[in-house]
Amino acid sequence: MKALVYKGPGLKAVEDRPIPEVKEPNDAIVKISKTTICGTDLHILKGDVPTCSPGRTLGHEGTGTVEKIGAGVTAFRPGDRVLISCISACGRCEYCRRGMYSHCTTGGWILGNEIDGTQAEFVRIPHADTSLYRIPEGADEEALVMLSDILPTGFECGVLNGKVAPGSTVAIVGAGPIGLAALLTAQFYSPAEIIMIDPDNNRLEVTKRFGATATINAAGVAAAETVMKMTGGRGVDTAIEAVGVPASFLTCEDIVAPGGTIANIGVHGVKVDLHLERLWSQNISITTRLVDTVTTPMLLKTVQAHKIDPAKLITHRFKFDKILDAYDTFSRAAETRALKVVIEA
Amino acid sequence: MKALVYKGPGLKAVEDRPIPEVKEPNDAIVKISKTTICGTDLHILKGDVPTCSPGRTLGHEGTGTVEKIGAGVTAFRPGDRVLISCISACGRCEYCRRGMYSHCTTGGWILGNEIDGTQAEFVRIPHADTSLYRIPEGADEEALVMLSDILPTGFECGVLNGKVAPGSTVAIVGAGPIGLAALLTAQFYSPAEIIMIDPDNNRLEVTKRFGATATINAAGVAAAETVMKMTGGRGVDTAIEAVGVPASFLTCEDIVAPGGTIANIGVHGVKVDLHLERLWSQNISITTRLVDTVTTPMLLKTVQAHKIDPAKLITHRFKFDKILDAYDTFSRAAETRALKVVIEA
Repeated sequence: MKALVYKGPGLKAVEDRPIPEVKEPNDAIVKISKTTICGTDLHILKGDVPTCSPGRTLGHEGTGTVEKIGAGVTAFRPGDRVLISCISACGRCEYCRRGMYSHCTTGGWILGNEIDGTQAEFVRIPHADTSLYRIPEGADEEALVMLSDILPTGFECGVLNGKVAPGSTVAIVGAGPIGLAALLTAQFYSPAEIIMIDPDNNRLEVTKRFGATATINAAGVAAAETVMKMTGGRGVDTAIEAVGVPASFLTCEDIVAPGGTIANIGVHGVKVDLHLERLWSQNISITTRLVDTVTTPMLLKTVQAHKIDPAKLITHRFKFDKILDAYDTFSRAAETRALKVVIEA
Repeated sequence: MKALVYKGPGLKAVEDRPIPEVKEPNDAIVKISKTTICGTDLHILKGDVPTCSPGRTLGHEGTGTVEKIGAGVTAFRPGDRVLISCISACGRCEYCRRGMYSHCTTGGWILGNEIDGTQAEFVRIPHADTSLYRIPEGADEEALVMLSDILPTGFECGVLNGKVAPGSTVAIVGAGPIGLAALLTAQFYSPAEIIMIDPDNNRLEVTKRFGATATINAAGVAAAETVMKMTGGRGVDTAIEAVGVPASFLTCEDIVAPGGTIANIGVHGVKVDLHLERLWSQNISITTRLVDTVTTPMLLKTVQAHKIDPAKLITHRFKFDKILDAYDTFSRAAETRALKVVIEA
């Protein structure tokens, strides 16, 4: 089969690989129909993710059809159409029983990282019963690819951790795909204001169509000052960090209201300054989270009920044999205006 | 009347001051029977608290008897014995209605800071109906002085924010009065382990008598390594920062388990390093809080029901005319083994 393989920092190639086999009783082999590229894949290609070794097939998002199952799989059968979660969860360890699948002792984010991923014709999914979701009849499969990772990530790490609530004021720093996923899912809870902050006017235009009540094209102190002016000097109840660099985290520290929450989504490569000399008395919370994907079944229902349309996030489509073009388009997002690119079998 | 007055950085004096008068309809004048000294008073004396101007009578803790009331006070009458909260709360503003009295728009921590405090023969208490608590019949008044500030601070900022729970593992960095208040109140929730970390062996001995399950006389990396060894490499569910310096906050970052909470109590004078490059994926929360004293009525019940004995924290007693000796004893705590010193009328 064909697979997109990480060849070491800066290098990737489409290679011929053997079709994966069932190795453990709880494995399923899934024939991929749709997959996509995540910002994290670009991080891996930069050499920023030490757990991912050269030779690894990338990709942790996708949909497909169950091809084979191990003897222990009871929830799925060959022929079932499934959504693949970016998080593999045994469902049995202490972390899984607390709903913290991200820290499953034999799973977590391993797909396209520590084991071969979804940017291939077939993929092996461990702990299949608790890591796959049945695609409902009549569902828009393409839209559901957004539920493998970015929708639950924006929702769990940003909206739920950030305690977005009716009437509250929210700011989202970063209008990339993850910031947009937070913007879409924040609206489940009817906040009064959602302020989007990004230096890219095209992306800010998108956020207006997606429900932002205000946009700020600025960064750093200028962005924070604008938010404080917009909120009468009070700040925001929820500040969602959707970039992953010190400057954007600092903006969140500068705009969070007393009693508010900074919900970090961004993947950080370096430490940040935490200004406890002014925040110690501000009754704030700061949260971090690797997505658990515990809300995937709920998000599936919101898509089916048309409460949210994640297909809006898809800007480009490629056949699998053009996956290198898909990477090129996605990695030049500012120019190409790419949000999510879907790669089809 | 006599009052202990802040005279500028490094300076204090006992001075003659006029007895305070009712200025607002919701004021009460309280004749002080017992007060105490807080670490924050020492911060003020160092010149670290810019909101407190020279000439201010210090003190934000105490008990006494209502002497006079304004026309708007309905919950208390002259002669009532009362506990004074360190936080003044109007009960009407948006923050008060959310239970965030610390950020009351006309109150908060103003006593012995922005208005004259309790280290005097009389004190004016604004918003008296919602800032005083009736002392129950037969109560140990001395013990209740601990409920003005340190008990609710250790409990709200450390134990409640830290989500201490049955069976959980807790570490408290700092065994001063506030760390001890967290240690005492953490036991309401039956955690499996409470590990106390402090460089003072005398204080660690005290923590063992107060219910610590383990003690560590170390700081920095050595303390963190010991905690990780004690917890099988997992870390603690709740790390309570009860010092207020970067090193002790860093210890909390080093020992918090995936899914755990760092509850900051310490008053910080400088920023700290937040290691998001490893914590972004650890599903942790960090909380800050200026005590709201919303739990004061609950804590009063726990004292009355003998679920907790805050009188244990009192090591020294002085008459008011020896208040300078009380300051001297409290500020040399490592030598004098002082925890809380009570000053009596």
